[in-house]
Amino acid sequence: MKEYISKYKDTRKKILSYEYFLWLYEWDYATEAPKESNQYSENQFEILYEEAYKLESDEKYIEAIEKLYENIDQLEDEDFKVEIKRVHKGLRMIKKVPKDEYLAYGLLLQQAMPVWVEAKTKNDFSIYAPTLKKIIDANRKLVKYLETDDLKGYDVLLDMYEDGFGIKEYDEFFSVIKEELVPFVLEVTKRKKQKFSRKLTKGKFPVAQQEAFSKYLMEVFEYDQNRAVLKESEHPFTSGVSSFDTRITTHYYEDNLQSSIFSTIHEMGHAIYELQNDLKYEDTFLHGGTSLGIHESQSRMFENMIGRSFAFWERHYPKLVELFPKQLKDTSYVDFYHYINQSKKSLIRIEADELTYSLHVLVRYELEKLMINGKIKVEDLPKKWNSLMTKYVGKRPTNDAEGILQDVHWAHGSIGYFPTYALGSAYAAQIYESMNQDFNVEVAVKNNDIARINAWLKEHVHKYGMSKTPKEILLIATNKPFDPTYYINYLKKKFNQ
Amino acid sequence: MKEYISKYKDTRKKILSYEYFLWLYEWDYATEAPKESNQYSENQFEILYEEAYKLESDEKYIEAIEKLYENIDQLEDEDFKVEIKRVHKGLRMIKKVPKDEYLAYGLLLQQAMPVWVEAKTKNDFSIYAPTLKKIIDANRKLVKYLETDDLKGYDVLLDMYEDGFGIKEYDEFFSVIKEELVPFVLEVTKRKKQKFSRKLTKGKFPVAQQEAFSKYLMEVFEYDQNRAVLKESEHPFTSGVSSFDTRITTHYYEDNLQSSIFSTIHEMGHAIYELQNDLKYEDTFLHGGTSLGIHESQSRMFENMIGRSFAFWERHYPKLVELFPKQLKDTSYVDFYHYINQSKKSLIRIEADELTYSLHVLVRYELEKLMINGKIKVEDLPKKWNSLMTKYVGKRPTNDAEGILQDVHWAHGSIGYFPTYALGSAYAAQIYESMNQDFNVEVAVKNNDIARINAWLKEHVHKYGMSKTPKEILLIATNKPFDPTYYINYLKKKFNQ
Repeated sequence: MKEYISKYKDTRKKILSYEYFLWLYEWDYATEAPKESNQYSENQFEILYEEAYKLESDEKYIEAIEKLYENIDQLEDEDFKVEIKRVHKGLRMIKKVPKDEYLAYGLLLQQAMPVWVEAKTKNDFSIYAPTLKKIIDANRKLVKYLETDDLKGYDVLLDMYEDGFGIKEYDEFFSVIKEELVPFVLEVTKRKKQKFSRKLTKGKFPVAQQEAFSKYLMEVFEYDQNRAVLKESEHPFTSGVSSFDTRITTHYYEDNLQSSIFSTIHEMGHAIYELQNDLKYEDTFLHGGTSLGIHESQSRMFENMIGRSFAFWERHYPKLVELFPKQLKDTSYVDFYHYINQSKKSLIRIEADELTYSLHVLVRYELEKLMINGKIKVEDLPKKWNSLMTKYVGKRPTNDAEGILQDVHWAHGSIGYFPTYALGSAYAAQIYESMNQDFNVEVAVKNNDIARINAWLKEHVHKYGMSKTPKEILLIATNKPFDPTYYINYLKKKFNQ
Repeated sequence: MKEYISKYKDTRKKILSYEYFLWLYEWDYATEAPKESNQYSENQFEILYEEAYKLESDEKYIEAIEKLYENIDQLEDEDFKVEIKRVHKGLRMIKKVPKDEYLAYGLLLQQAMPVWVEAKTKNDFSIYAPTLKKIIDANRKLVKYLETDDLKGYDVLLDMYEDGFGIKEYDEFFSVIKEELVPFVLEVTKRKKQKFSRKLTKGKFPVAQQEAFSKYLMEVFEYDQNRAVLKESEHPFTSGVSSFDTRITTHYYEDNLQSSIFSTIHEMGHAIYELQNDLKYEDTFLHGGTSLGIHESQSRMFENMIGRSFAFWERHYPKLVELFPKQLKDTSYVDFYHYINQSKKSLIRIEADELTYSLHVLVRYELEKLMINGKIKVEDLPKKWNSLMTKYVGKRPTNDAEGILQDVHWAHGSIGYFPTYALGSAYAAQIYESMNQDFNVEVAVKNNDIARINAWLKEHVHKYGMSKTPKEILLIATNKPFDPTYYINYLKKKFNQ
């Protein structure tokens, strides 16, 4: 065993180093590299990527993992056992999928991006359809290679993104959404809309002041500046590699004050999760968030449950007025609270409000099920998309750019990813409620005591890194299995006020 | 030969990739990485660094280089011959220096930095002396390993930084400096000083406007935005990896308008040199500047001969006034020109003006000669420094922080580097004069036609990358061997006006 452990750890060290540099490349590429630099850097990236793949597919390394897995009971350290289980599961791709198919799939995805961009720009699904068909077919083949006794079909993909969540679990979850949320949304969106000052809705908000407010938010959320970077990019994202190095981006629009604010808060939720991982996971494969759903629960809790709360703006609105005295002159924090919590039927997921967001996800979930089960032809997808949107969100797209062409995910090969977005919001509500049993969260927010919230989340979620499954985390943090009722109740309470 | 060529090129490809990532790390580290991130990233760096070293010291790779070098006449491509010669020369370190001594030296340098910082901060040379002694001793040993029939002693080190320049060449150069420049400086610095508006000398210049002017300068110098990054760092520097990716930094001081301006222009001189390399050198070891001296000639020409010229400010001063209308209200471009071209005796090299700069370098050159020849004890260095400063610059340091402790170079192990700074200015004057024979450079500057200057430099200097030696570049660009008279004449003309 000793030699397997040392082979494993030696290779892990190198893989982590290569992953660090590939991560740095992606960060630089997305935030800073000059436009034409890819003409040189892509080559360099490819070479290191290949070296990393060689390490990961090294026979001796794979043998070590398999031996450790077979003799997992002999391992003393509990964390190490979990790590070996995770890594062993990850081996499937390398072992079960023929190398040429694996590489061909990678190539296909590389080519898919510009095709999707063109189709979206030209608002023409027929440009994208042949590529999307190839991606769906490749995923169906992938599924076949990876199926086990327990996991079949779409479940194989769902499980990749959220351990323990398959069609059965998601169907249950979304049935609650359909029964409870769909009619509620219909009711809310029918209500008469509040009118807001034109200064707020049509005002100009200089970027320099928005930047200053983002910096202020980093202080408010006690996001440790010595382990953080805040930058701007086209689409906001979080990119961390270590608890000592977490980086986020936001995007500033001069004519939209709230966009950068809630992006910054959202990404801080992701970043603080990884920042607060136990340091013992630093040089292992257990550093990070345990799943996309749990990750999203942290960002959504920060963004919506804290960042869009009444208590938050009662406390921090004066700072915003200080930075934008003219624009916010006639607007009180109560107005502002209502302004940032409006709900309306919309067509674009990333612009959807908190209340309607999961309905957009539901549309994608039902489509993906049909796609992977071979129950729908690619050419029929736009029509189906539009009818599901009408059914669940109550609004029909007038073209494919605002319909099926809006998301990049499938062009990335990410099928089974979307459902975690909705799940994250539901997790967030359940975790928030549990925290609220220990102390009054609203009072903490009002007192600007985010430290207390961070400490609670560290203790009950963050510190575990990837050493617990999403289901385990939920049990640790809430003492209960997943229950979407918290989410429904939270939304009903907030949007009935 | 074929197999050696392919072994060489295969390994080169990987080394270039690793170098790219190590470069990206350094850039990120100096400009963006969070303060504590090194607690994770240093490990990752070390691992990739070791992998790169393994590649460079791979026996088969070294064998390929040696075989190609032995049979260099059989190689058809002239550039490839030059590359093999350069790489073969670079092998000396790996072949002649015992590995443990080489690694121990690396470790010594790693430890030296914080020691130097502490000594400088505490203004106490005795803290630094034992470390400096070790560095000097290690360099003297290094010299012994690397000596050849043609290169002995200090020449071994000088040659590393400037091919073809040893004690003989530098002694000749500096004797002209001593004879012509030292008395001239004495004369100039005795003259009555012009008084400038307090708004200019004591004014506040907000960073945002300085940033705007730096961006304006990038346009003026036609520094291609699609291949450039401009950022801020503690000490300005240029860091390029490809003609498609050149990056510079500057530093903004609210109470000093000229610092960021001339840093930006200086670094653009370096960056445009590499940006204008022939693209055929991209994936070879011939991309970059051929030597430190030639590199510095480009940055100094931009900074001093163009950036501090009368014509330049006649043209661009209105833009500066537009950004700083209050601060520059009473100051004309003529005043400003004189303000940025003042000359005075100073103690700190990096704050020295154009006229006195090379005298600071002379002090270091004479000290290094003594150090490497074993003609001076470490404890006597501060005294010698001070007496040389008095002799050449005409001003005596009152403590070691403003004396021998001011520069980081020796703590980096860079002995033999300083002289290239002075050489660069002298090269610049000679190259400028040659360009001026082809077209009136001042008129081009006044007409804001920097494109013409860049095109000339590309054709006569930049495009060659590292495929020519400094001496060859000078012959190509000026049709003459190196002649410091151009430099002296340029300075006399400018500072006699």
